[in-house]
Amino acid sequence: MLQVGGIINELTSIVGPKNISSAQAVRDQHGKDESYHSIRSPDLVVWPGNTEQVSNVAKLCNQHKIVMIPFGTGTGVEGGVAALEGGVCIDLSRMDEVVSVNHADMDVTVEPGVTRNFLNTYLRDSGLWFPIDPGPDPSLCGMAATSASGTNAVRYGTMKNNVLNLEVVLADGSIVHTAGEGRRSRKSSAGYNLTNLFVGSEGTLGIITKATLKVYGIPESALSAVCCFDNIQSAVDSVVEVMSYGIPIARIELLDEVTMDSFNKYSKELNYKVAPTLFLEFHGGKNEVEGQAKATGEIVQSNGGSDFVWSTKAEERNKLWQARHDALYAALNLRPGCKGLVTDVCVPISNLPEIITKTKEDIGNLSLIAPLVGHVGDGNFHLLVLFDPNDAEEKARAKDLTERVARHALALDGTCTGEHGIGMGKMDLLKDEIGSPGIEVMKNIKKTLDPHNIMNPGKILYL
Amino acid sequence: MLQVGGIINELTSIVGPKNISSAQAVRDQHGKDESYHSIRSPDLVVWPGNTEQVSNVAKLCNQHKIVMIPFGTGTGVEGGVAALEGGVCIDLSRMDEVVSVNHADMDVTVEPGVTRNFLNTYLRDSGLWFPIDPGPDPSLCGMAATSASGTNAVRYGTMKNNVLNLEVVLADGSIVHTAGEGRRSRKSSAGYNLTNLFVGSEGTLGIITKATLKVYGIPESALSAVCCFDNIQSAVDSVVEVMSYGIPIARIELLDEVTMDSFNKYSKELNYKVAPTLFLEFHGGKNEVEGQAKATGEIVQSNGGSDFVWSTKAEERNKLWQARHDALYAALNLRPGCKGLVTDVCVPISNLPEIITKTKEDIGNLSLIAPLVGHVGDGNFHLLVLFDPNDAEEKARAKDLTERVARHALALDGTCTGEHGIGMGKMDLLKDEIGSPGIEVMKNIKKTLDPHNIMNPGKILYL
Repeated sequence: MLQVGGIINELTSIVGPKNISSAQAVRDQHGKDESYHSIRSPDLVVWPGNTEQVSNVAKLCNQHKIVMIPFGTGTGVEGGVAALEGGVCIDLSRMDEVVSVNHADMDVTVEPGVTRNFLNTYLRDSGLWFPIDPGPDPSLCGMAATSASGTNAVRYGTMKNNVLNLEVVLADGSIVHTAGEGRRSRKSSAGYNLTNLFVGSEGTLGIITKATLKVYGIPESALSAVCCFDNIQSAVDSVVEVMSYGIPIARIELLDEVTMDSFNKYSKELNYKVAPTLFLEFHGGKNEVEGQAKATGEIVQSNGGSDFVWSTKAEERNKLWQARHDALYAALNLRPGCKGLVTDVCVPISNLPEIITKTKEDIGNLSLIAPLVGHVGDGNFHLLVLFDPNDAEEKARAKDLTERVARHALALDGTCTGEHGIGMGKMDLLKDEIGSPGIEVMKNIKKTLDPHNIMNPGKILYL
Repeated sequence: MLQVGGIINELTSIVGPKNISSAQAVRDQHGKDESYHSIRSPDLVVWPGNTEQVSNVAKLCNQHKIVMIPFGTGTGVEGGVAALEGGVCIDLSRMDEVVSVNHADMDVTVEPGVTRNFLNTYLRDSGLWFPIDPGPDPSLCGMAATSASGTNAVRYGTMKNNVLNLEVVLADGSIVHTAGEGRRSRKSSAGYNLTNLFVGSEGTLGIITKATLKVYGIPESALSAVCCFDNIQSAVDSVVEVMSYGIPIARIELLDEVTMDSFNKYSKELNYKVAPTLFLEFHGGKNEVEGQAKATGEIVQSNGGSDFVWSTKAEERNKLWQARHDALYAALNLRPGCKGLVTDVCVPISNLPEIITKTKEDIGNLSLIAPLVGHVGDGNFHLLVLFDPNDAEEKARAKDLTERVARHALALDGTCTGEHGIGMGKMDLLKDEIGSPGIEVMKNIKKTLDPHNIMNPGKILYL
């Protein structure tokens, strides 16, 4: 394999001298080991300005069999952008245009540098919004690459359900439009579903350079509610009933007693009961959301939930969801100086009580602190496992806990990742989750689209 | 290639002598040319009783490079089950068990002989239902294979959104579980999305032998409504507004004046105004559906729609949707002795008035009768193009019309098929829709999963 240094001049002529950087500068910029997975630096970083440049970079790398790592915002948690074998990092942040907004059709097309917060700010005056909300502010194309979702998925779906078309540069530099160039119909049964092949491919099959997404009307009214329970089972029973009634709930989040305690300690303004709690939100017309809230309140109370405290005031709602979005910081505040290792599993809803019970036993046995938050309408939950980064033994216990949670999920008909992806962190789990014949199909797809294994190697699959 | 006759004994020993039939018997059973696409008979039909038999049949066919055509109910309209090169038809209708129903998790697993009506009858007492409703009564696995949908897709999505896992037998006989065996979590970002690769693959990548599907609570209340408009534009404007307000409408169907006229003529009980009309349905709690209907009624009237006639009575609702489901028969009744050629395109909603205007010009220029019905919440519509099967010239004009509609859709950012698939009927259109790089990706996937091109060849892609 040619050293990356040998193509610097050609890369520079493709992207321009201001859009390429050496390995050392990259290391200085990105710093060290801020998460569980170690950062591995690429040899070079390029910042292409358009799809043609991305394609030309790919052609050059393909010709010399040099590794490419697509980079959005680096907010993923499974080490998906680590440059395990060096190579060229293709940082897409300078391709940051909202290409089109079609109001009547409620779709937008964005370049890979556009983040979800940027898009929602951009759209605000139009009355539209993009509801998928993983915690931080990732790029929308990165969210597509990871098959991300978040608290609103129970109503609005995940990225899988909201990407209409992708422009993707393959390993050989060819430019594919997964649904055909410029197409944005809401439904299609035209040939193989390439869009959803690239959604969730984590940069291993190609580089997403444009995404056409569904957007939604900002709801006329939103109503948030809180209620707590004596135990997880009653909370989950309530969720099951809400779902089976078909109440089009926008958010239904479970927070365990450890999380609620962390909220109270993190914000002086909050004084929640320290018990398993549901945060809920309803979207729609004013009467509609009140009707939904009333129906949900009755379900909650029939399952032994507390008073159903609800509000349509923006201030109250913001306080609630700010607490939820600060969950990571609130958790870290429980043990200053610690870092957090985030798990992500998803099981059929009815298995939630069992997996949570087992997980809490594990947490106790491993002497760890690990607040739990969950998008329970989908059966998806996370632990924020605290560990002292200077205590190798504790770090190993934290890792052991995440492994145990994932194994419980696999034993309960679930998945080792509901929304964070496989990255480099869950490759063994994926093998056990899918089984050999399915893994072989994945490998064959990878090999046919990237025969030299130069697209973000060492992620998802062992080749 | 070995003649199919050479493996009869081995096939018989796999499926048993009562589950294999000769070509002649098949031809007698299936009859001739009932649709636009000619029926082409396979050499043999086998009716396997379980997945292991399907796998053994595939292994045998793969060994001898003999073509396999998976067969569900034969209700597809693009010739997807035509045995263009003879071979072995694998009729899955005798694998007809509902394998599991998980009430709390609202999912079911079915074998490929289970149809949607069978499942809904089976589920009725449980309070659950599967809402995806293409017109006839196809098998659910066949619906997955075609990426089908229907009138409820605007709320409940298409098959893409409702399949959680598939068991698939590949060309070489290996058995893949696309999400891992027995898994049924609602969300996953674990590896490549194999489930949605096989959804819509029309039997060209493998044989679906089990599907795990989302089901839903039967809504507490349902409300249907009718309103008519002076023109298509006003109807579409209303739809756009309803969608942008996020009203969780369950069905919103457009029927043009020709269709309304056909309804009146077909059923003596009906006396609709002969004008562009919307049929609508709302699902939810009693107050909720009335709230949704009221809000929608206001939107409709602000767009010049007629009085919004609505009803929650089952009898009234059934009358309405019976008329909609009889649309094909009502259309055929306009010219007794004729057959119908069904189109299927989907465009961004705002392009509906333009494509419908162009299409009506084409219908006039071609002197055809072609009632229009559309799932307009998704921008998807069909024409039922009437033609005299004994008039080759008129049949050619009918085909010309369907081609024109598809070309208009492609010119308006749309797709040549929203829910019927490519089959053998739309392979040229697919090439133009997706473009060469995307088609190459599809071909590469096909070749890697079916290197001998024995899985339902001659469909979707020219290899």
